[in-house]
Amino acid sequence: MGGGNVHLQGIGVSRGIALGRVHKLHGDDFDVPERQLTAAEVEDECERYTAARQKAKLQLRNIRERIPADTPRDIASFIDAHLLMLDDRTLSDAVTDMIRSEHINAECALNRQRENLVAVFEQMDDAYLRSRRDDVEHVVVRIQRILLKGDKTLDVSTQNEAAVVVADDITPADVILLNQQGVAGFVTEYGGPLSHTAILARSLGLPAIVGVHNARRQVNDGDEIVIDGQRGEAIGTPGASERAEYEERHRAEARFRAILEQLRDVPSVTADGHPIELLCNIELPADTAHAHGVGAAGVGLYRTEFLYMNREDTPDEDEQYQAYLSVIQAVQGPITIRTLDLGADKQVDSGRIQGPTPNNPALGLRAIRLCLKDEELFRVQLRALLRASAHGKVKVMLPMISNLNELLRARALIDELKQELRNEGRAFDEQLQVGAMIEVPAAALAANMLAPHADFFSIGTNDLIQYTLAIDRVDDEVNYLYDPLHPAVLNLIYMTIAAGQRRGIAVSMCGEMASDTRYTRLLLALGLTEFSMHPSSVLEVKKLIRESNLAELRAVGQRLIDTHDPDEVQALIEQLATLPETTDAA
Amino acid sequence: MGGGNVHLQGIGVSRGIALGRVHKLHGDDFDVPERQLTAAEVEDECERYTAARQKAKLQLRNIRERIPADTPRDIASFIDAHLLMLDDRTLSDAVTDMIRSEHINAECALNRQRENLVAVFEQMDDAYLRSRRDDVEHVVVRIQRILLKGDKTLDVSTQNEAAVVVADDITPADVILLNQQGVAGFVTEYGGPLSHTAILARSLGLPAIVGVHNARRQVNDGDEIVIDGQRGEAIGTPGASERAEYEERHRAEARFRAILEQLRDVPSVTADGHPIELLCNIELPADTAHAHGVGAAGVGLYRTEFLYMNREDTPDEDEQYQAYLSVIQAVQGPITIRTLDLGADKQVDSGRIQGPTPNNPALGLRAIRLCLKDEELFRVQLRALLRASAHGKVKVMLPMISNLNELLRARALIDELKQELRNEGRAFDEQLQVGAMIEVPAAALAANMLAPHADFFSIGTNDLIQYTLAIDRVDDEVNYLYDPLHPAVLNLIYMTIAAGQRRGIAVSMCGEMASDTRYTRLLLALGLTEFSMHPSSVLEVKKLIRESNLAELRAVGQRLIDTHDPDEVQALIEQLATLPETTDAA
Repeated sequence: MGGGNVHLQGIGVSRGIALGRVHKLHGDDFDVPERQLTAAEVEDECERYTAARQKAKLQLRNIRERIPADTPRDIASFIDAHLLMLDDRTLSDAVTDMIRSEHINAECALNRQRENLVAVFEQMDDAYLRSRRDDVEHVVVRIQRILLKGDKTLDVSTQNEAAVVVADDITPADVILLNQQGVAGFVTEYGGPLSHTAILARSLGLPAIVGVHNARRQVNDGDEIVIDGQRGEAIGTPGASERAEYEERHRAEARFRAILEQLRDVPSVTADGHPIELLCNIELPADTAHAHGVGAAGVGLYRTEFLYMNREDTPDEDEQYQAYLSVIQAVQGPITIRTLDLGADKQVDSGRIQGPTPNNPALGLRAIRLCLKDEELFRVQLRALLRASAHGKVKVMLPMISNLNELLRARALIDELKQELRNEGRAFDEQLQVGAMIEVPAAALAANMLAPHADFFSIGTNDLIQYTLAIDRVDDEVNYLYDPLHPAVLNLIYMTIAAGQRRGIAVSMCGEMASDTRYTRLLLALGLTEFSMHPSSVLEVKKLIRESNLAELRAVGQRLIDTHDPDEVQALIEQLATLPETTDAA
Repeated sequence: MGGGNVHLQGIGVSRGIALGRVHKLHGDDFDVPERQLTAAEVEDECERYTAARQKAKLQLRNIRERIPADTPRDIASFIDAHLLMLDDRTLSDAVTDMIRSEHINAECALNRQRENLVAVFEQMDDAYLRSRRDDVEHVVVRIQRILLKGDKTLDVSTQNEAAVVVADDITPADVILLNQQGVAGFVTEYGGPLSHTAILARSLGLPAIVGVHNARRQVNDGDEIVIDGQRGEAIGTPGASERAEYEERHRAEARFRAILEQLRDVPSVTADGHPIELLCNIELPADTAHAHGVGAAGVGLYRTEFLYMNREDTPDEDEQYQAYLSVIQAVQGPITIRTLDLGADKQVDSGRIQGPTPNNPALGLRAIRLCLKDEELFRVQLRALLRASAHGKVKVMLPMISNLNELLRARALIDELKQELRNEGRAFDEQLQVGAMIEVPAAALAANMLAPHADFFSIGTNDLIQYTLAIDRVDDEVNYLYDPLHPAVLNLIYMTIAAGQRRGIAVSMCGEMASDTRYTRLLLALGLTEFSMHPSSVLEVKKLIRESNLAELRAVGQRLIDTHDPDEVQALIEQLATLPETTDAA
């Protein structure tokens, strides 16, 4: 291929327009050699593996040290996560043990261990957790590269013009490295919008497209290429008019960015004066820097699963307390912490949360169900959360509530633990708010009954949509049915918000819908007043909010809920989705 | 154990009180011997296996021939099903092939094949289909028994007093045999209410309890025992007062049965004069005899999965046409035929419906989704159904509809096929009704939008409850959450019925809730006017209907839907559940 004008389509994961010359990266599609060792060779091979692993650590430390001071604080945390993995049993002793027991070469042992680890992640329900398999892949690739090709780091800085890197996949560390070397953007064949690679590209403002099938075969090194990281489109060897169009988009994008920057410190209020709360979803303590950066009012979803994963025991109360404390201290404003949202199928490492894999794990013993069954596990987390609540504005959010009894049992346990802490003379927030995630259809339908016993609701749209439509979004055969705009979904969202309003409790939304600017006005129309989202979406959502007339939107929302005519629903949704030109804002 | 008074608790699967002497059956917990054959022994072993299989067929034919003429017609069909299995490849050539290729003894080969077959059934979502694994077990046990113990048939007829058989499990054929030998009832350690064994016991009016843990260890041969096949309770060596109590229950039961018998030919009408339609769910053509027997108005659910299972190809149009024709001709009244409700995970045999097992098959490519994807598969079934519709009052029911588009696509395909048949000069019912099963929460919530495009709705409560509550009922860890009375479930049922009424289309219910007399009044209160159920429940449901004042119930139902107070919901449900004494009816 190559030569002439080539259109590439993928998933835009980091907005922005870039123009440069193609620089292809090859070589991470390793052919892993398999060799049987003699007994005499085994120890040398173990040493060779350990040396490669040490070199990988050195490479990462070098990249980490060269991160400029003005980079968002959490960038380094991605590198730290990989450094920790390099020292983990699963990638150190487990691999050398395999070399010793199977008498196989290091590359082959590492590859088998990679397959073991990846299989664990692939079974997970949560898209965020699944994306962590990429971390395993990236760390393994780095060691494998050293084993097979020696200690060379990536270098694209030799070119005169800005490079657009085209690769099979890029590790988070290499994203930082490429950024340091002045790369204009990148296109990869694999990866998804929730990968650390994508998150980093957004953090660094590096335009990026992932999931472009056979990208490397379609362009040649040195070709001119333009990429649009929002639309997920790229053109190799563009013609003059395409070039001009991308350059105009680039300018429009820059103007839009400049406008958004001005919104950082202005309040989130609709054009007709109604305040709308914007919060962030964070995964790691380091993510809090981002939340500050975009002027979010606090954290609407802090996940606690990472504390429990990739380890053989469960974290004790003090470890959890310290972890929560560090996030609370880093966050400005309130922070909503979700209790453990793992399923029996997920926690393969940790002895106590094991069991046979159920036929339908998404419909199984998960989240609050698991916590109410393994009460000791739940107690430890709740005590840690209560103690941490003494140091900031903490709210506790219970995932996957499906009936009133679960909510009441969890609250009773919290009350019991409060009394325990009182007896022990330990501090906690007596007013600690306890809320329910609304992500099971039954909970949305029974929201009026749950509301008197919840201090707040938070709608988890990802699961709510999946259960309501009876689809597993991760199942390629049915993900075409995933539809946030299905009238049933809109009705459940509306019912939940209305039940909260009736009872006077806050209703927030922390699923992906809240991050997606296509739905901002629709959600305002349905009555939503609290959005919790990825930090990178906050400014754009704020812009839409400031341009919206809430009273007008609500009137449209009411018609949407009242009608039984699918054509009218469609027309009203389109009316709400019609956004002003991005450059129109004042 | 034994001696003194022993209480046994299990699942009552066939109502009635029986009093007799314990007769324990042993020996079906085989120790399967494993032996490696020499090459010279292989062919003899294959012959030994084939001879055992032939003897098993002979035994079954003998039992079949001795079925008295007054037995319901479908009893023989269970035997026929097992006879067919004995001739199936999976239990004939597949086993001898294994003996030849692995050089193992017949018992061992049969046991391995049994494990293969059972594994297939265990993955199934549908409780009805899962119960078919018992058929495999029963047929295998019969052959295994002959291989290990020679050709002896069961004999309990030597005792003077009526025997109550206590066994690990009983095959359908042995149920018939035991009934012929005058057994008063039976208790087994394994089995469930949907097994053929249980269905047969109900058909024969033989009181039976299944799932009694360690039953055989708890009683001694010759002990007196009373069993209550409705409550699932038995007492070994009962005292005088317990004996008297069971005898009184026995009389009350007989009176109740006599009352029900009188309801066979009276109309199904509420006390205030509203007709309520009672239909049957059937699985096999032979089940139609039952539907007649209880005076049902027709068939509300005929499943078509069996046509596709346990075979290597899919049934062609003519085979299906003949199968539908035979049911249509056997049924009095209309018959609602459900199109294929298999998932990609279920159809292991049939080449075309294969694929990797999804993580959550219940949320995957199933039912209408599979049919719309594999349109050729769907076309063949729809053409067969259309052609069959020329010969009776057929309705076509589409399972697992989750949005309007699916319904419209299926209808468009049916219209296209009608035109095809017209062009070919083939007859079909031009007015063929096409309805949607409402079993996905999204469908119930969007019922108002589906109704204008459906000729009827049928509520599938089993799946509707599972998806609404996000639980897999087959998963032991969460089946405690399965709750037909969850306010969310009641609301979805109400919404569906109301949407049907608004549009003037019939709304039926074919899930288990419709069979369960605990919910009859509740469903009447929610506005249901068509119930489709297991034939054995029809008379009892009819009795409740005839004792109900619909106007009163509807008023309670409206309050149930309107209130947000869980205590009031509970009180209203209890009010509806309070049934009259079984002996009160006129």
